[in-house]
Amino acid sequence: MGVGTEVVLDHGTGAKLSQELLGLIVSTLGDAYSGEMEDSAILSIGGGRIAMTTDSFVADPPFFGNGDIGKIAICGTVNDLAVVGARPLFLTLGMIIEAGLPIERLTQVLTSISKTAIEAGVQIVCGDTKVVRKGEADQLYLNTAGVGVFEREPLRMSHVRPGDKVLLSSSIGNHTVHLLSIREGLGFETRVLSDCAPLNGMIDSVLRKVAPGAVRSIRDVTRGGLTGVLHEYAGVVGGIVRIRQADVPVQPETRMAMDMLGIDPMNAANEGCLCLFVDPAAEAEVLSTLRAHPYGADATCIGEITDGQSAVLVERPDGSTFALEELQGAELPRLC
Amino acid sequence: MGVGTEVVLDHGTGAKLSQELLGLIVSTLGDAYSGEMEDSAILSIGGGRIAMTTDSFVADPPFFGNGDIGKIAICGTVNDLAVVGARPLFLTLGMIIEAGLPIERLTQVLTSISKTAIEAGVQIVCGDTKVVRKGEADQLYLNTAGVGVFEREPLRMSHVRPGDKVLLSSSIGNHTVHLLSIREGLGFETRVLSDCAPLNGMIDSVLRKVAPGAVRSIRDVTRGGLTGVLHEYAGVVGGIVRIRQADVPVQPETRMAMDMLGIDPMNAANEGCLCLFVDPAAEAEVLSTLRAHPYGADATCIGEITDGQSAVLVERPDGSTFALEELQGAELPRLC
Repeated sequence: MGVGTEVVLDHGTGAKLSQELLGLIVSTLGDAYSGEMEDSAILSIGGGRIAMTTDSFVADPPFFGNGDIGKIAICGTVNDLAVVGARPLFLTLGMIIEAGLPIERLTQVLTSISKTAIEAGVQIVCGDTKVVRKGEADQLYLNTAGVGVFEREPLRMSHVRPGDKVLLSSSIGNHTVHLLSIREGLGFETRVLSDCAPLNGMIDSVLRKVAPGAVRSIRDVTRGGLTGVLHEYAGVVGGIVRIRQADVPVQPETRMAMDMLGIDPMNAANEGCLCLFVDPAAEAEVLSTLRAHPYGADATCIGEITDGQSAVLVERPDGSTFALEELQGAELPRLC
Repeated sequence: MGVGTEVVLDHGTGAKLSQELLGLIVSTLGDAYSGEMEDSAILSIGGGRIAMTTDSFVADPPFFGNGDIGKIAICGTVNDLAVVGARPLFLTLGMIIEAGLPIERLTQVLTSISKTAIEAGVQIVCGDTKVVRKGEADQLYLNTAGVGVFEREPLRMSHVRPGDKVLLSSSIGNHTVHLLSIREGLGFETRVLSDCAPLNGMIDSVLRKVAPGAVRSIRDVTRGGLTGVLHEYAGVVGGIVRIRQADVPVQPETRMAMDMLGIDPMNAANEGCLCLFVDPAAEAEVLSTLRAHPYGADATCIGEITDGQSAVLVERPDGSTFALEELQGAELPRLC
């Protein structure tokens, strides 16, 4: 299946079609592009190394129960820097605002950005604001780009090897249920809150605790969901990512809402959940460190990497297994 | 005049209302913000210094006679890094695409991004693509953030002093006329082309030629036009920016179109024009170096800084002067 003749919503959902669009982007940029597959680029600069990343944010609704698009915009970029092992330092802030946005709403977003940036220990160092006519955007879209420094060796997907444990730092699906519940009027939004959080502090405490290299690689589970992350690793590692279905944490209300919506939690977007690939010798230490942190209370081991041809296998509670299919798309736009 | 109760188009045009919105943004971000008034932030990192900047791009139309939004997105960020004296190295690329955009159009933008990045000697190191539903954006919006390194002392607005010459690297107004002509069907777009260009090469050749410090500060003349730039310097320098009206270069067709549109070229947005503040002893050398470059053929001295209370004074051809008013807004959205 090719990229088609026009951009469709599924090109933006982090699933297979997104990957195909990314292929087109990378090949068209050609020599002008030097990116890697990590969440942040790892760059040499003046004798040192920095991490650099960017994300645009188009969350609908932009204001939700326990956060807003501003909080997501800081967390998304901070987390992308932190998962490669960098210390996030500087963020840029680009805003595209639809004319007519109440100043009060803008102030609310900026207050949230400020609060989250201070929690994460990062500075907004520059910004840009564009205003478009009514109907040319939906309230406001944000972009953050970030720079971090390395005080340790960068983590890389290519460090993952057979035998490594696969850990999750929290339950999955909550952010998706919270936003869709508000969007579709399902009434779950007071019981299921977004997991949106800056995770650099928790990642740092884990990396300080274990031997260098014991945490091979970390990815934050955002668009494309856990399914997308696991397939990406299966492809890069060239092994089997084996997951126990019963061990993947999903809160009961979240599962109920997902059933109603017809969404598999494995495919849901999150904003505060890490997938960690860890030396088995360090598993217990990593888990206890995660669980000691407010954002990692539900941390658990969900599986491991084994030898074999690239695949993601899921073990059912009865012991049988099935190959987890890679999604073409998710038709769930604008969750972040 | 305060910032009002809702965001209006003039908040995005680079004129006085933009400054008021910026004031609100900076004060609400509070301790999370550490920006300066320069086009790029100048940051300490691992013992060295880097420049960092960002811009979002919402140009309407996104495809025009001699360029497109992709070219503007690279030039805008490259130029913002170069004018503070940094060497642009790495760019991020965020895209917000309206569902339904033909893939061919996307490829056209990416090809243009690639070509311009290669001309400017920068690498795209990471990116992000979001797709929104039809009617939630207008074709596509871009964001680029950039990082550059300093191989010389940063240029700063605060280095400008009375006696300095004010130079322009090119005629003004062409980008605005080109885009508005296409937008409004005026028929000027084949005779007046956008000036959009990456100016880092030209800036570097100037800075190599003259003594360190002789070029005090450079600004690219974009949104808000020359009027905006001159008022900003008058404010920071605390002196009079004195301009000779007859010496400000405007092409005849551009002036004709501007008259039809009722726009003062002084207020028009450009994408390849520099305003340089220069030690008078270096004026001739800077001008000849600019003129030797294809993007600086029309370079000229338009005035100087003199002692006095902050103001921008324009001398008419008959020798009389008037104070140049700072615009509230320009009602010309989406030129970049």
